[in-house]
Amino acid sequence: MSERLVTYPDIEAAAQRIADIARRTPVHTSSTFDKQFGARFFFKCEQFQRTGSFKFRGACNALSLLPTDGKARGALTWSSGNHAQALALAGRLLGVPITVVMPSDAPRIKLEATRGYGADIVLYDREHTTREALAAEVAEERGLSIVPPYDHPHIVAGQGTSARELMEEVDDLDLLLASCGGGGLLSGSAISAKTLQPACRVAGVEPANADDATRSFRTGTLHTVHNPDTIADGARTPSLGATTFPLVRTYVDAMYTVREISIVRAMHFLWQRMNLVVEPTGALAVAWLFEEDRPAIPERVGIIVSGGNVELAAAVRLFEEFGLE
Amino acid sequence: MSERLVTYPDIEAAAQRIADIARRTPVHTSSTFDKQFGARFFFKCEQFQRTGSFKFRGACNALSLLPTDGKARGALTWSSGNHAQALALAGRLLGVPITVVMPSDAPRIKLEATRGYGADIVLYDREHTTREALAAEVAEERGLSIVPPYDHPHIVAGQGTSARELMEEVDDLDLLLASCGGGGLLSGSAISAKTLQPACRVAGVEPANADDATRSFRTGTLHTVHNPDTIADGARTPSLGATTFPLVRTYVDAMYTVREISIVRAMHFLWQRMNLVVEPTGALAVAWLFEEDRPAIPERVGIIVSGGNVELAAAVRLFEEFGLE
Repeated sequence: MSERLVTYPDIEAAAQRIADIARRTPVHTSSTFDKQFGARFFFKCEQFQRTGSFKFRGACNALSLLPTDGKARGALTWSSGNHAQALALAGRLLGVPITVVMPSDAPRIKLEATRGYGADIVLYDREHTTREALAAEVAEERGLSIVPPYDHPHIVAGQGTSARELMEEVDDLDLLLASCGGGGLLSGSAISAKTLQPACRVAGVEPANADDATRSFRTGTLHTVHNPDTIADGARTPSLGATTFPLVRTYVDAMYTVREISIVRAMHFLWQRMNLVVEPTGALAVAWLFEEDRPAIPERVGIIVSGGNVELAAAVRLFEEFGLE
Repeated sequence: MSERLVTYPDIEAAAQRIADIARRTPVHTSSTFDKQFGARFFFKCEQFQRTGSFKFRGACNALSLLPTDGKARGALTWSSGNHAQALALAGRLLGVPITVVMPSDAPRIKLEATRGYGADIVLYDREHTTREALAAEVAEERGLSIVPPYDHPHIVAGQGTSARELMEEVDDLDLLLASCGGGGLLSGSAISAKTLQPACRVAGVEPANADDATRSFRTGTLHTVHNPDTIADGARTPSLGATTFPLVRTYVDAMYTVREISIVRAMHFLWQRMNLVVEPTGALAVAWLFEEDRPAIPERVGIIVSGGNVELAAAVRLFEEFGLE
């Protein structure tokens, strides 16, 4: 498996590769937040990346690395989330036709966004087909390259460019927090951190209701969850992957879990006080600060806010449901 | 009155003066928006200024310019909006005690935010007192300097620093759009634009329901409105002021009005597609693009998004009311 591991030069190369099409996202700060938690926080805002999440970074890197004939034939993924939109736009910009396999009951807004970026959608019935089987079949039939949502070295290298940008701008971080679904963002971020600011601890955050990565990290054995009940839809992935699990074990210092109420509190602060629209998964790393029994916070903390794609009314209903005004 | 006029060197000096405490706000872009309207747009995001609006710029500049003994005695304003919060925080950071005269029925959230930044609040009953009379009385009694919300050269000079930053970063703008309430932001922006990019046209935007500045601009006579019915609360000011009216007449090329539905559409795009929380007044300049009978849009357009302080649930109710999902 070692040949699949990712190293910092891969991230540096990815940064060069995507520089012309991905955005350098801004770093926001809040003196109110700093005061409330007694530390200095630097929010790297991936909700302002193209297509509204960090996923565009990995998608651009992976598509750029396809061989010329592979680019011409096109690429395929299965995802109803941010990776689908990211790959669709990256494909349009890089001239690679994109096919996305999606369940027929995927939220219409996500389906339309993905189609809006020019992808070809193949719908399937969750009851009778598994997406991996269908994806493999369609890819084989049409000669398409599969670009998975997280478990690929080129995806990990692309996602690592966000932490790299943050650490170029902000010195001497003591702690870097990133959300964890399949581990692409977390492992990429950790590799960047350990090279650029080796004294900085790196922690991943996932919902307590979907704590597979935390259990895998602590035990060294891959744990899985099945359809976990969490508002953080990007963290509903069943487990870390063959590429990301060893990277997380090697480069990440801690894994933490957060309750749903903390995710909603974090979102509410980001929306109401910092004017930032952030989706539940995007607020995971911030949510950890709202956990009462967490370890003490060091002086300088970098946080990757990973995405912003959320239905506005649904988010405001969450705020009301949890009594936040 | 000419001695009260503001010139570009005043804005440059203000920029130096506030550099250490005000933020340089980011410029956002959206290829979806560009495609929809067939031009390139550059959104200068003042909702990310400290206290959530451009008002912090003018407040810092005005307080910095008080004489030493004036700083020690303190400053006073009347406002229940963004200027109150801006002045309160600027006062705390610059060591100037701040008093704010507010109606006793002001929204509790605004009252608490202003008090949260450390200001002393003097409440009055709208029925029996006028705020100007009370403000003058309290200022006299306590020896405080009055810092009005817009009609002062030091305020105008501070507000002009936002357009200055935008034009340092983005070349060759054909049009600069700014919202217009009392005209502080608009006149400051126009002075910066006419110096830095003289070929750029400057237009102010206000609600059709509060079109006093447009009428004043077109006729050359000061028009007023009384408690206009618009969701853009920052544009409910009765009229341009003695300082801002001549500046607007001299430096601004056009004034436009927008309907309430266009304000809501603009907000919805900014929230849902660009992940930006923007208040109704902050979206005025963007709203103009959604007006069907407007003139053609030139190639490169700068837009000052002026603020983000809005109750989340109220904004989402507006989206639902106007059928936007």
